[in-house]
Amino acid sequence: MSDQAICESSLEFGFWDLELGIFFECGNLHHLQYNIMEAIIIIIGSEVLSGETLDTNSQFIGKLLNNTGIPVIKKITIPDDKAMITQALSEANDQAEIVIITGGLGPTNDDITKKTLAEYFNSKLVFNKEVFEHVKELFKNRFPQLTKLNEEQAMIPACATALRNRLGTAPGLLIEHLNKIVIALPGVPYETQNLMTEEVLPFLANKFNKFTLINKNIRTIGLGESLIANQLKDIEDNLPENIKLAYLPHLGQVKLRLTAYGRDHASVSKQLELITNSISEQLSNIIYGYDDEELQECMGRLLKNEKASLSIAESCTGGYISHLITSIPGCSDYFKGSVVSYANEIKINELGIDENILKQFGAVSQENAEAMAQGIRNRFNTDYALATTGIAGPDGGSAEKPVGTCWFAVASKNKTISKKIVFDRGRKQNIEFFSINALNLLRKMILEIE
Amino acid sequence: MSDQAICESSLEFGFWDLELGIFFECGNLHHLQYNIMEAIIIIIGSEVLSGETLDTNSQFIGKLLNNTGIPVIKKITIPDDKAMITQALSEANDQAEIVIITGGLGPTNDDITKKTLAEYFNSKLVFNKEVFEHVKELFKNRFPQLTKLNEEQAMIPACATALRNRLGTAPGLLIEHLNKIVIALPGVPYETQNLMTEEVLPFLANKFNKFTLINKNIRTIGLGESLIANQLKDIEDNLPENIKLAYLPHLGQVKLRLTAYGRDHASVSKQLELITNSISEQLSNIIYGYDDEELQECMGRLLKNEKASLSIAESCTGGYISHLITSIPGCSDYFKGSVVSYANEIKINELGIDENILKQFGAVSQENAEAMAQGIRNRFNTDYALATTGIAGPDGGSAEKPVGTCWFAVASKNKTISKKIVFDRGRKQNIEFFSINALNLLRKMILEIE
Repeated sequence: MSDQAICESSLEFGFWDLELGIFFECGNLHHLQYNIMEAIIIIIGSEVLSGETLDTNSQFIGKLLNNTGIPVIKKITIPDDKAMITQALSEANDQAEIVIITGGLGPTNDDITKKTLAEYFNSKLVFNKEVFEHVKELFKNRFPQLTKLNEEQAMIPACATALRNRLGTAPGLLIEHLNKIVIALPGVPYETQNLMTEEVLPFLANKFNKFTLINKNIRTIGLGESLIANQLKDIEDNLPENIKLAYLPHLGQVKLRLTAYGRDHASVSKQLELITNSISEQLSNIIYGYDDEELQECMGRLLKNEKASLSIAESCTGGYISHLITSIPGCSDYFKGSVVSYANEIKINELGIDENILKQFGAVSQENAEAMAQGIRNRFNTDYALATTGIAGPDGGSAEKPVGTCWFAVASKNKTISKKIVFDRGRKQNIEFFSINALNLLRKMILEIE
Repeated sequence: MSDQAICESSLEFGFWDLELGIFFECGNLHHLQYNIMEAIIIIIGSEVLSGETLDTNSQFIGKLLNNTGIPVIKKITIPDDKAMITQALSEANDQAEIVIITGGLGPTNDDITKKTLAEYFNSKLVFNKEVFEHVKELFKNRFPQLTKLNEEQAMIPACATALRNRLGTAPGLLIEHLNKIVIALPGVPYETQNLMTEEVLPFLANKFNKFTLINKNIRTIGLGESLIANQLKDIEDNLPENIKLAYLPHLGQVKLRLTAYGRDHASVSKQLELITNSISEQLSNIIYGYDDEELQECMGRLLKNEKASLSIAESCTGGYISHLITSIPGCSDYFKGSVVSYANEIKINELGIDENILKQFGAVSQENAEAMAQGIRNRFNTDYALATTGIAGPDGGSAEKPVGTCWFAVASKNKTISKKIVFDRGRKQNIEFFSINALNLLRKMILEIE
């Protein structure tokens, strides 16, 4: 990280070297170097190492910093252990200008981050009245008692500024030392998120030099990573050096991430737009959205555009599709409701399925999937309806219909289409895969594409 | 990590020092030292650092290794960058016996782990016929075309053994070098999981010395971290040195994790059992389960025990409770189905809600929540029914009923109980919090506790 490199390129905008964290401007009389600020995240928590807890904080922080033009160059996860925290702090402080620590700020004995930070900076824990008043205020609204542990949360390193944690008792800590910044945040995800957005980002906004780093995501569904790469071979072989393409596959979807670096925002943005257009043209129908738009948001957008309404009948997906649809704010504009018809009697009574269909073809059949979609559409009086029926596993399969078999159907006023997939990666993944594919079938019907 | 420590303790079973990775046996004529194997996980992926992708692989690997008695002492996340991969490999190889790498084994240009590993071990990429046949076989079943990129997946470092990736084209890699083990796995979660379970663990099982590390989780709901800590003060102050207690809070739940180290499994197990019993007695009704049992599994267990059936009417939770319930294998034994009644007309037509209730009290009211629970229970003919109605946000709140207000109700043959909460941490968290609290109300009704 401390090596220097000389730019030999003659690109119009120069290039940005992620490894060295340096932007090189080229093609002029002299080479200029622009240092940018980089960050390292230290995640403290034995529970993260042992796998008890899934760390989502560092993803949130990474995304936010990245979008602000501060790349995260490393994450280090270590236990609640003084020696290891000290070592990681020292390493991170050497390698990056900004160090963000999460975890270990809680009120219980296993939380040692605060003490360790104070020692690392040769400082002491001192009582902070403002933090104490905040803890008192929070507890007034939540619990009647104030414990000794809560009082200890008002002790912070003398060298630190307390960052107001609106949603919890442990304050964030901000330490500036020798032109470097160390920030410690509590491990509770919504507290970290709130502190990052309300306190940390506004602070950092004043600290870093401007340069341009633009990400563009192209979201596809229905084609594998290597087949897409094959289709994009020409485009990829001719990518300019300051644009990178990465393939991020997840359960039937592949997200293509383009990252462009440069100095002039307008030029880089234009360059990225041209590449995005080429890829979009090449992949056409398998693209459902861009950037952060998830499939369920795409569905909402399509339904809103058509002023159309949706109902869902879920058997094997058990409410997951409804959950995806209702996770989008404002979904009541197009979503009326669902029936989760787990038992056959619910399929018959609530969706009006003919018992003979279940007897003759079974619940997991094209006939039943289509009847479910038509049934819920009529019953809930919607423009579109979606239905799923399958075997999520791990039990319930047969030779003819193995675990992982799913039929799904989409009905509109004029037609009903259906599709079968067989996919078994365990119950939870199966449910997710079935749901995503069912939504994709609805997408194709609305857009009238194959 | 390289320091040594002398055990001064006279505990019966000695103690295990996580910082030093050494087990100390005490209280005998001589001190013995048992080295155990430790692991470091290296996560490779620029997309993980930028926050595009949530890393779940390292949680899965950590949990599995931890349960096998191999503690993970560090995780390092770095970009797809040769210099940083080499540096992390070298650091990890110094500090632990086992290094597990995930990511960067895919077929596209941004994946450089394989090449970097070959160079690091002064080896070359060679063609592996077995891997090639496997890739061909996989593609036969999935896609008709075999691309050049897929062929390249059969190239592996000469110093490595290929681990068969049943679910994907990129093989795992196993390298043994100077008594250390380096394992590289692809970044796709289900492939990593499968390779860990089917290939890596059986291999490691023969390699490490036996010692005992037992985890016990006590899962609580409804009381905050510091209030629980207050109740457990006496127990915590008197914990033996070889047992650690950690508090892991998440949205209204707190998981208490006890970790016990020692040499004799039976003794450590007994010791842990006694502590677990003391805590269980102290916290009684707020404990819903132990170890990996999640609240939805607890619900399944309780309903199965009673041979009782369940139906759900969800408004603001939009299918999430149904999804939780149906994520448990075998839930068809007790779960009949749900209605997600997003639109008021669905509440009226499908749940039989009296229009006057909606007019007089509004959809978000105790009266409506109770009527919804009773309505779905009658309609679906179940022993218990659960209903939710609220404002998940971000819009739709009022002064009287702010965003985050939720009424939920549980109905049985003999009674209906309901509860209101106000909690706003953003739509997704609100939906989760409402759902967890609704399930807890059902738990209390079934167990007849307050």
